[in-house]
Amino acid sequence: MSLITPFESALTERTDLEELYKHFHRHPELSMQEERTAKRIEQELRALGLQPQRIGGGVVAVIENGDGPVVLTRADFDALPVTEDTGLEYSSEADGVMHACGHDFHTTALIGAARDLVDDRDSWSGTVIALFQPGEETAEGAAAMVADGLADAVPAPDVALAQHVMPAKAGHIGTAVGPILSQGDSVRVTIHGKGSHGSMPHLAIDPVVIASSIVVRLQSIVGREVPPNEFSVVTVGAINSGTKSNIIPDSAQLLLNLRHYEPAVRDRVVASLERIVRAECAAGGCEKDPEIEFYDQFPLTTNDEDPTRVVTDAFIAEFGEEKVGTQVPVTASEDFSRIPDALGAPYTYWTVGGFEEPDGAPANHSPFFAPVLQPTLDVMVQAQITAVRAFVGK
Amino acid sequence: MSLITPFESALTERTDLEELYKHFHRHPELSMQEERTAKRIEQELRALGLQPQRIGGGVVAVIENGDGPVVLTRADFDALPVTEDTGLEYSSEADGVMHACGHDFHTTALIGAARDLVDDRDSWSGTVIALFQPGEETAEGAAAMVADGLADAVPAPDVALAQHVMPAKAGHIGTAVGPILSQGDSVRVTIHGKGSHGSMPHLAIDPVVIASSIVVRLQSIVGREVPPNEFSVVTVGAINSGTKSNIIPDSAQLLLNLRHYEPAVRDRVVASLERIVRAECAAGGCEKDPEIEFYDQFPLTTNDEDPTRVVTDAFIAEFGEEKVGTQVPVTASEDFSRIPDALGAPYTYWTVGGFEEPDGAPANHSPFFAPVLQPTLDVMVQAQITAVRAFVGK
Amino acid sequence: MSLITPFESALTERTDLEELYKHFHRHPELSMQEERTAKRIEQELRALGLQPQRIGGGVVAVIENGDGPVVLTRADFDALPVTEDTGLEYSSEADGVMHACGHDFHTTALIGAARDLVDDRDSWSGTVIALFQPGEETAEGAAAMVADGLADAVPAPDVALAQHVMPAKAGHIGTAVGPILSQGDSVRVTIHGKGSHGSMPHLAIDPVVIASSIVVRLQSIVGREVPPNEFSVVTVGAINSGTKSNIIPDSAQLLLNLRHYEPAVRDRVVASLERIVRAECAAGGCEKDPEIEFYDQFPLTTNDEDPTRVVTDAFIAEFGEEKVGTQVPVTASEDFSRIPDALGAPYTYWTVGGFEEPDGAPANHSPFFAPVLQPTLDVMVQAQITAVRAFVGK
Amino acid sequence: MSLITPFESALTERTDLEELYKHFHRHPELSMQEERTAKRIEQELRALGLQPQRIGGGVVAVIENGDGPVVLTRADFDALPVTEDTGLEYSSEADGVMHACGHDFHTTALIGAARDLVDDRDSWSGTVIALFQPGEETAEGAAAMVADGLADAVPAPDVALAQHVMPAKAGHIGTAVGPILSQGDSVRVTIHGKGSHGSMPHLAIDPVVIASSIVVRLQSIVGREVPPNEFSVVTVGAINSGTKSNIIPDSAQLLLNLRHYEPAVRDRVVASLERIVRAECAAGGCEKDPEIEFYDQFPLTTNDEDPTRVVTDAFIAEFGEEKVGTQVPVTASEDFSRIPDALGAPYTYWTVGGFEEPDGAPANHSPFFAPVLQPTLDVMVQAQITAVRAFVGK
Repeated sequence: MSLITPFESALTERTDLEELYKHFHRHPELSMQEERTAKRIEQELRALGLQPQRIGGGVVAVIENGDGPVVLTRADFDALPVTEDTGLEYSSEADGVMHACGHDFHTTALIGAARDLVDDRDSWSGTVIALFQPGEETAEGAAAMVADGLADAVPAPDVALAQHVMPAKAGHIGTAVGPILSQGDSVRVTIHGKGSHGSMPHLAIDPVVIASSIVVRLQSIVGREVPPNEFSVVTVGAINSGTKSNIIPDSAQLLLNLRHYEPAVRDRVVASLERIVRAECAAGGCEKDPEIEFYDQFPLTTNDEDPTRVVTDAFIAEFGEEKVGTQVPVTASEDFSRIPDALGAPYTYWTVGGFEEPDGAPANHSPFFAPVLQPTLDVMVQAQITAVRAFVGK
Repeated sequence: MSLITPFESALTERTDLEELYKHFHRHPELSMQEERTAKRIEQELRALGLQPQRIGGGVVAVIENGDGPVVLTRADFDALPVTEDTGLEYSSEADGVMHACGHDFHTTALIGAARDLVDDRDSWSGTVIALFQPGEETAEGAAAMVADGLADAVPAPDVALAQHVMPAKAGHIGTAVGPILSQGDSVRVTIHGKGSHGSMPHLAIDPVVIASSIVVRLQSIVGREVPPNEFSVVTVGAINSGTKSNIIPDSAQLLLNLRHYEPAVRDRVVASLERIVRAECAAGGCEKDPEIEFYDQFPLTTNDEDPTRVVTDAFIAEFGEEKVGTQVPVTASEDFSRIPDALGAPYTYWTVGGFEEPDGAPANHSPFFAPVLQPTLDVMVQAQITAVRAFVGK
Repeated sequence: MSLITPFESALTERTDLEELYKHFHRHPELSMQEERTAKRIEQELRALGLQPQRIGGGVVAVIENGDGPVVLTRADFDALPVTEDTGLEYSSEADGVMHACGHDFHTTALIGAARDLVDDRDSWSGTVIALFQPGEETAEGAAAMVADGLADAVPAPDVALAQHVMPAKAGHIGTAVGPILSQGDSVRVTIHGKGSHGSMPHLAIDPVVIASSIVVRLQSIVGREVPPNEFSVVTVGAINSGTKSNIIPDSAQLLLNLRHYEPAVRDRVVASLERIVRAECAAGGCEKDPEIEFYDQFPLTTNDEDPTRVVTDAFIAEFGEEKVGTQVPVTASEDFSRIPDALGAPYTYWTVGGFEEPDGAPANHSPFFAPVLQPTLDVMVQAQITAVRAFVGK
Repeated sequence: MSLITPFESALTERTDLEELYKHFHRHPELSMQEERTAKRIEQELRALGLQPQRIGGGVVAVIENGDGPVVLTRADFDALPVTEDTGLEYSSEADGVMHACGHDFHTTALIGAARDLVDDRDSWSGTVIALFQPGEETAEGAAAMVADGLADAVPAPDVALAQHVMPAKAGHIGTAVGPILSQGDSVRVTIHGKGSHGSMPHLAIDPVVIASSIVVRLQSIVGREVPPNEFSVVTVGAINSGTKSNIIPDSAQLLLNLRHYEPAVRDRVVASLERIVRAECAAGGCEKDPEIEFYDQFPLTTNDEDPTRVVTDAFIAEFGEEKVGTQVPVTASEDFSRIPDALGAPYTYWTVGGFEEPDGAPANHSPFFAPVLQPTLDVMVQAQITAVRAFVGK
């Protein structure tokens, strides 16, 4: 009655969360189109007796439990336009879409934590805001929730929390004070050449040559213009022009991604990028200026010192010193910080490893990205609970 | 009573052919998928009392009219994956497909000529093979008709004829003895890199950079490796890699088009192309070799002297000296010659201009390619008739 | 007594001219610095009883011999900044200077012809102007002689002649009506970057990267902008920037060479060159504009029809049909035509082969360029004589 | 009598050192050719009653003063192949050679410190080794002194010291524990093409295009292959090929400079560099392999903790806290550490600013590099004295 029940119940709960995780993994949805996922989250929250609200495409449930701090904890739930190639039994069933960044872990873990908090209200006091965010990959979701009235829909939090699964040792947690995720920009460059038959290049302004020259010329920015001890990433993630061998197309498109920790470095890189794109179009003889559009812009994620120390101490107490380390600043970006920034709360963001052999493991966004189900899920659920209880626990 | 009738009939015939042309222009079909066009051609031929045969996707009708030479005359009828931007009232109604190379003129003119030959059997003697060919743009159609038994389906021709509309002065005709259209190759290059998150370039083998470097490096072939007085075109008609700014893709694809008049020059260019592609993949650290596949290979088109002189003299007699000139060898290619080569016949191929102001006119394959309906169509019909009658006329 | 004398005299003359050739080959002098060579030419002419004049660094002797046409025949006598690597017994004794273009043959042959004309005045009637020109390689010499009063110093010629040794079969002669040598331009491009310590690239504007990018980008001109059936050469003969690995230099210099047969093509290439240089400097962030200076500009050489036919017929009569062919237009340039153009005379320019195995023979300007002494020299002497006598012979 | 004397003497001493500095600045000598400078240093040391020894091109004087620690302090004295453009009254009088890195300050300061230590032996006890090193710029000097028996010529030091003038605020001092100067490599790349006349590119293997393509392709190493949070510099300091516009040269040479803090990153960059050079030569069709030679290799400079703290505390006591800061790791390299490493001593290396307006000041190795004479020299002399006395002072 006493010992056996929780044991069985815990086992059941664990299996149930694993099934929920597999469900999310099988049914990924692209950013800002996550209707089915959002509905399932609402259904799970309602099953706990909570009253989920849809805000800006996301889902929020407030768990009130007497006096005490207000803690917001956020999980993201969108997937990527990647064709899964993991060979997992529970692989994506959606064509060309995959949870290749592990947001299915985040969402499942937050549902698991909500169950724990609702099940055991005696051991804590305060308010927990379980926030499920759409569209992280495109930097749209956090802004959409803020724009849709998040501040009016929930009490003002005292602190905000978030976590992310990473290609590190499974079950190990990384925390850090200060900059932890880079500032990110996406840039769409459209080059206007002039098409022609492939056999008459002298009548064309060849956008394939111009676009390729831009890609090649951009390579010198990081190595020549950025101070060697500064962080800068300039990736051309896509180059697309033309469909047939013997038609010189009219235009070309590049999609770029920039990552920085220092605004001054970012500003110099943006200026260099614009200068090079315009100059290469001039070199190619373009008669019309290129278009350079910024989109999917991610803020810098900088953990506040106080909540980071509270959470780190709680993790060490829960998981042991050998499982908790310092997360070096990573190259990726997040839009999470827009939420605490809009609500005026300090925040901390930590990472959880998901790989038995992290060396050479496929990185986030790879079609082969496959964190081991356990202990990853257990640790992410428990880390979520531990971090929240570090503020509202009795 | 006498003069008026033919006049009206000619006018009616002219309007009818114009409508037929507009019909073809409105309903373009991609190479080797021209089912609707082929059916319409058959219907037009049957209306003349002929018995069209479907061979290799094309349509052939033999017009027998007593003793005399056997003349094959060919029109092609496929269109291109181009989105029409001419603003013409009779613009393409097919999404992303357009008669951007003018094959609708060729086909309409040959139907017009067939009508004339059938209507006026007294003035000529011999056999005319009206051959409508599919899939010229992909170099598939002529070979397909030959493979499907063309030689058995028609009498052996004594001569073969073909014409093409060009960005030259409307109604002017160009002929030439010897090489008139280049040999052509299409090449598909697939580069195998290694994908990664856009913020982790050091874990990737970036196919965007490698593909761009190949495009840039290929530019030196024509200017450095081809003797300066030799003809060579190396066009990269398409470069495609990646779909999102923050995902470094796994691979990239290039589609190239080569044009030559000299086999030795072509061989050197092909060797250089392969050398550069492999070396640039090595420079980029590729772990897997690139694939280099040749497709859509066009033969050299070299007009035979005798039929060319016969046709040229007939054109001068019909249209006047000021309308007939020498066509300089053009950069484009054709698969027409595969048909006379397979049937053992000499051939000649001429061009007809379609523009009031040829300078700066959009070239074939441009989304803006729009020859004026008249006098282009009239002259192409009459040129077709004149050339055939030069051999079978009484 | 009678037959033997001329034979021995001819043998002596031949040996003597071979020694003279070897002397010139051993003592090459750079363009417009050919003092020693000019003096030796004067000495040889004076030995014939002629009165050589120094004009614009060159030497001219007028051989008057009664009534008849006035024929100017020209040989150039400058050498190149090339370090000879032929292994010839009579290799250059001047450090880093070599007769790598064969002007020593031209000069020796013209001296040989002068000897013949002076020795045998009975067989011809008219005036022969033996013109020895300096500074052909830098396009300075012909202009210098014209500027220094050539027109006043010699009678107006009725025709002008010149010849050049080539990597073709030894003793074979090539003639052609119309364009035979290309128009040539040299261009000096100076790029102004900003130097820095090699470890601080972000403080520099790196001229090495900019200059290299220009070279790479220029490669697309011939293959993309020039019509594929037009002749165009864009060579970067020199790129120079920096002296130490760890100092980023302040500037870079490129030396380019352009060759064309069509002024319109040349104009487009020059415009593209200027556009690319300026745009690449902009891409690299240069704060100061590049300098683009034209120098060593060679005119087009186009043989006039009448003198070419006269000379060709005379060559066939002298050497046999199998030794005289049509010279295809070559890629090189000459300033010879400036002289007949200034004097208002038609002209013809022919080539003489100098190699037993022309395939793979080192081309003019190579450190390995070594035409065989005989029959090359004999044929060039005799061609000179034959061509002159075709106009003034009795 | 008492106060005035030291004042005047100090003034005299100051003026004298300023003159000595100007002397060194006026007479710079290239690395390992510093005969005149070495002689002047010996003369100065002998004037103090010391017995300088010449070792490996450098000069060493041991100042013994009773029991106590043995402190080695080192100044370098070579200059650079840079043409001075500072406009200073005491500008270099040597053609194309300049103290563009400030070693004249280091040497003058160490002579000043030696004077102080010799003049005032009562206030300290121990042994000071004043070491003047040649050839720092080429990484030859420290190794040469070690190879020439430095260890046998001086007592084993307990600590080693060195300082460098920098483009920072004049008189400000920077210290740091751990890595402070990068590891450096120089690389000479020789590309073997095939020369030809500039108008016959198809007969050449163009080394100008190949060398330029290498430079362009190398630009992707830092931005694509090095992790974005790692330090890496890949500079091409020189590209040289060809001398004339119309001769395609036979070969090209590149001089590269690499800087790293992590051996694993350096190893990857070296591998990438070799891969790219070889692949680009293959792309260009080279028939002979390129040569890749390493030279001027600098070790990593990593300050030991204990001496750095001792020296930093002494600087704060002497100059005040506002004048002493943490030096961030700089991009440059030094061979200083070879000396303490060979002698088994811990070491520290600090920097001194030399500019009133450090923002935008010309960096070391610039032809405009001109630290202000004062307070730079005073502070460097005093820093030298302070650091030594921190170990041997009473």
